[in-house]
Order: sequence, then structure tokens, then C-alpha cells
Amino acid sequence: MTATIHRLGSRPQPSLDPMVRLVTGDMNSVNAVILDRMQSEIPLIPELAGHLIAGGGKRMRPMLTLASARLIGYTGNRHHRLAAAVEFIHTATLLHDDVVDGSDLRRGKRTANIIWGNPASVLVGDFLFSRSFELMVEDGSLKVLKILSNASAVIAEGEVNQLTAARRVDLGEDRYLDIIGAKTAALFAAACRISAVVAERSDRDEMALDAYGRNLGIAFQLVDDAIDYVSDAGTMGKDAGDDFREGKMTLPVILAHARGDAEDRKFWKDAIEGRRDSDEDFAHAIDLVRRTRAVDDTIARARHYGRRAIDAIAGFADGQAKDAMIEAVEFAVARAY
Amino acid sequence: MTATIHRLGSRPQPSLDPMVRLVTGDMNSVNAVILDRMQSEIPLIPELAGHLIAGGGKRMRPMLTLASARLIGYTGNRHHRLAAAVEFIHTATLLHDDVVDGSDLRRGKRTANIIWGNPASVLVGDFLFSRSFELMVEDGSLKVLKILSNASAVIAEGEVNQLTAARRVDLGEDRYLDIIGAKTAALFAAACRISAVVAERSDRDEMALDAYGRNLGIAFQLVDDAIDYVSDAGTMGKDAGDDFREGKMTLPVILAHARGDAEDRKFWKDAIEGRRDSDEDFAHAIDLVRRTRAVDDTIARARHYGRRAIDAIAGFADGQAKDAMIEAVEFAVARAY
Repeated sequence: MTATIHRLGSRPQPSLDPMVRLVTGDMNSVNAVILDRMQSEIPLIPELAGHLIAGGGKRMRPMLTLASARLIGYTGNRHHRLAAAVEFIHTATLLHDDVVDGSDLRRGKRTANIIWGNPASVLVGDFLFSRSFELMVEDGSLKVLKILSNASAVIAEGEVNQLTAARRVDLGEDRYLDIIGAKTAALFAAACRISAVVAERSDRDEMALDAYGRNLGIAFQLVDDAIDYVSDAGTMGKDAGDDFREGKMTLPVILAHARGDAEDRKFWKDAIEGRRDSDEDFAHAIDLVRRTRAVDDTIARARHYGRRAIDAIAGFADGQAKDAMIEAVEFAVARAY
Repeated sequence: MTATIHRLGSRPQPSLDPMVRLVTGDMNSVNAVILDRMQSEIPLIPELAGHLIAGGGKRMRPMLTLASARLIGYTGNRHHRLAAAVEFIHTATLLHDDVVDGSDLRRGKRTANIIWGNPASVLVGDFLFSRSFELMVEDGSLKVLKILSNASAVIAEGEVNQLTAARRVDLGEDRYLDIIGAKTAALFAAACRISAVVAERSDRDEMALDAYGRNLGIAFQLVDDAIDYVSDAGTMGKDAGDDFREGKMTLPVILAHARGDAEDRKFWKDAIEGRRDSDEDFAHAIDLVRRTRAVDDTIARARHYGRRAIDAIAGFADGQAKDAMIEAVEFAVARAY
């Protein structure tokens, strides 16, 4: 007997809905923890945090904690508090990211830094980060604390790495992968892994869930970066061309630059260094990434990591949870079209 | 037999030197941990962190952890790593503070945000904060993790409280004390208390050290706020008048405003709301705080908290450590003159 072999792309319109349905009950508990623990006597804190937390995010990371717990048959409720801790780390990161990037729009809404200013965003981010550690301490697992404090340090390192790589057109694919592995995939990996820790499963199960989350995280980020060169404004609550106009080095640019002729390379250098950011420039950029198949191949890379994510959980029992986690991967890589 | 009763002000020129000497050997170990754990493969991280960490700070908070350990006769070395964690939390807070305040000078040197920009300061602060939790997790005490994660959340709350209180001339003394209790005294308290935790001493000893740190922290901050209205540039690596020009509400202003006549109050309102920040305005402010005895009485408040700090450790054995901790309090309140 062989396990069912799952293929990416067999489903015509994959969706996150099965995963959302799988964890609905658990997510209500997580949301209750989030709502309770973002409170403070200082009114600006819940006001600002609530703007982002209630602001229509997918709750992807806590959802992964909950789905992973279902996959391995965990029946306790420790993961509710920890999923909230994961979401707080993510929210703190978003608040600081938007300050760092000077962003004015996230998930289709004005960013907190635009509404309340950079100082408030920095400080409320710090507060949520501290709260996330308080939640972990209440749970009491030093192993979970180790995994999430390490993930937090890696995220910050990845963000600094990205900052020092900004506007450098010669950034290679390896360094780009280092950056997204740290700033995005590390928390996806940790979010999945901690379910195996609270369920007291083997190291092998822990690492399998870690690998699922990490590869899914890389696939997610690759597709996000591809979407910037294909989508209409609003698809992800993010404007197409945002990355381009900010001179952000992402894989579509890395590939289009590497595959272009001398004139194309000059265009990319000028664009990434901030000398070309008009609508016509962006239209030309779209044309170049299409002609060099840079977007298609960014998606192809994402499919590779997506396949690895699916294979990482092949050893777990088939069922609703596994199906939902596989379809989440398919959704992640199919979003661009 | 009665314990020796220590009086504030009996020593003509109190100094931090006895405490520095008391902990020299331990501090070398702490510095080695700090230097080791601020490293990263991303060169900007140790570069930026090192600028502040090597930048001539007094290492007041880790010094308090070490002195407290000596006071209670702890003979292990777990507190070295934890003192480094405390300093990392403090450094992260300073990096974010300078971004929030737009400061350009700290300890007489240009701030990191001026040299490397706000984004790098925010992200390296996040990194150091994560590293501090990694150090605590390595130590493995959930109680220490609880104390320091709670202190971190309280600090962030205090900073947001201060932000929302900015430029409000009607801020009362109570709210001011809430703010400095959170943003300064909470970490002083935690730094002292964790020594009793690793030494496995009684709750009473823990709370005595907590009270020593908390009251010393309040005294320290009160005197810092007084110094802004008396010192020449350079005394603390901080320019006299910085708080005034930023419209910061501190106790000297609260008292001078409350004790002034209608004309004085109008002056303070204009100044705090940002409409009077010239050198002549500052000279007039100095004159007002002197005439209303606002600085003297800020120092008197500091002496009150200083006395409470000294009384909090009265129950511990007399000796070198206790003498050094008492003189540190005397130093804290005598700095202004």
C-alpha cells in the first residue's frame, strides 16, 4: 500500500475555506484571547492594536497552529493561547514594518502609522511583542518559548538584512531566499511546530510540521512578490506596483534583471535605485517581467516549495486536516492567477 | 540592638564607585555575554547595537542585578546571563525611545537613529529584545521570564502613556508618577528582584529588592528630570533644556505650572504646546522653576523615594554590598548639584 500522492494543481480553484472551516471553533477561542490580551488601561493601545488585529487579516499563522494541532490529533486547548501569542508577534512585526517602509496602506486600509504616527506604532508593537511573551510564559513551556524567541530574533535579523539589501539591483536569488526565509517563513514554521510541542509528539513530527510551515511560508512570500507585478489594486489589499515604486528587490526583479539585455538592466538599476517610478515605468516593468517569464518562474519556484510543504506532512494520517493543509498550499501558489 | 539607621545626605559627595568596584568581576562576565550575544551574520546589527552598548552607559540596571546578588550572598553565575538580558531590554528601549522622540544626542554621542536611520534603530531594537528573551529561556526560569516579560509590557505601556500625555500642560503629578513608574522604575525593580529568584530566596526578599529598585528608579528619573532645568550641557550627555524644547511634561514643570500665577501658566502652556522654545524662553523657564522652588521640590520628592529604597533593604545584613547600594541611592539624589 502506498500513501495517496497529492499533486499540486489538480484542483481547479483551491481555497483556504476548508482550513478556515476546520478551525472555526478553535479560532473563536483564539480571538477571545487576542481581544482580552490586547487590552490596557492606556486607551490608545487597544485602539491602535484593534485597528490592525480586527482589520481583516487572514489570521494565517494562528490558523496554521490550529490546523497542525488537528492534523496530529491534539485534544487539549493550550494551543489557543499560543496561537494568540503567534498572532501578536506577527502584528508587532507588521506595525514595525509599516514604520520601516513608510507604508500607507495595508489590507486595503490606512496603516496605523499614518493614522496615529510612527511613535505610537513602534511602542504598541513593543507592547504586543511583550504580551506575546507573557502569554507563552503563562503556558509554561520553555521549549515553545525557545522556538518563538528564536523565531523573533530571526525575523528581526531578516528585516535588517532586507533593509541593508534595499535598492541593490545585484541582490542574488540566494540572499533573497535568506531574507524571506527569515522574515516570513520562520514564523510560519514556528506556528506549525509548537502544536507538536504542546501535544508532546516526537521530534520527527515537530520537524515535519516545521518543514511544512517553512516551505509554505516561502511559497506564500514568493507569490506575494509575484502578485505585485500582475494584480490589480485591491487583490491583496495591496497596490500592484508598490514593491516596484519602493525599489524593493524581489524574485521577479532578480530574474528579469538577470535575463535582460544591457538596456533592460540599466532600466532595472534605475528603477531599483529610485530614478524610475512613474506609471509608464511600471508598465514597462510589467512588460519586461512577462517577456523574461520572470513572474511565471517566480510562481514555478513557489510551486517547488509548495510541493515540499505537502511532502513534509505526507507521513501523517489522511483526513480532513491534511486535506485542508494541502489545499492551503495549493491556494497559496494559485493566488496569482 | 537596633540596625544602623542610614540617613540620606550624611555623605558629602556620594558616588557610584563603591557599587562599580563591588561588581567589577561580575560585570566583566556580563560584558562578555553582551558582546557575544549582540553578534549576528548581518553586520549592521552588531555595528548599530555596539554603538549604543559600548557608548559609555553606566550599565546601571545590570549593575543592580549584580549588587543585589551580592547583598543576598548568591554565589552562582546565572545572574550574569540575566543581567545581560536586562541590559538588552534597556538598550532596545533606548533605541526605540530615540526614534519616538526624534533625539539626536544620547550620552554625548549622536544617536543611532541619526547615524543609521529610524528603520535600522527600530529593527535592531526588536532584535535585541528577542535576544534578551533567548537569554532568559537559556537560563530556564519561568519566574524570571514572567517578571521580565511583564516589566517589558509595563515599560511599553508607560511609553504609550507618556506619548498620549505629550504637550498636555494639565498633566498631574499622579499621572506623571504612573508614567515614570512604568517606563523607568519597572525595569530597575525587575533587575534587582531576579537576583532573589535565581538565589531561591523568600518572596519577602524578592519584594524587598523589588521595592529597592522601584524606589531608586523613581528617584533616578525625578533627578534626571530636574537636571534638565539646572545642568550645563554635557553633565549627563544630555543638553539642559532638551525636555523643555520638546515640550515634555516633567515634575519641575508640573510644580512650576501649579504654583505660578495666570501669566506664568500661560507661559507654560505656550511652551509645552510648542510655541515657546527659544533660548530666552528656556532662561525664563529656569527662572520660574527656581522662583517656585519646583526643582528643589522635585529633588525633595526624589529624596523621599530614595529613603524608601534604603529602608526597603534595611532587613539585609550590613556589609560592603549594602553600603554600596545605599551610596548608589545617595548618588542618585545628589547628582543634580
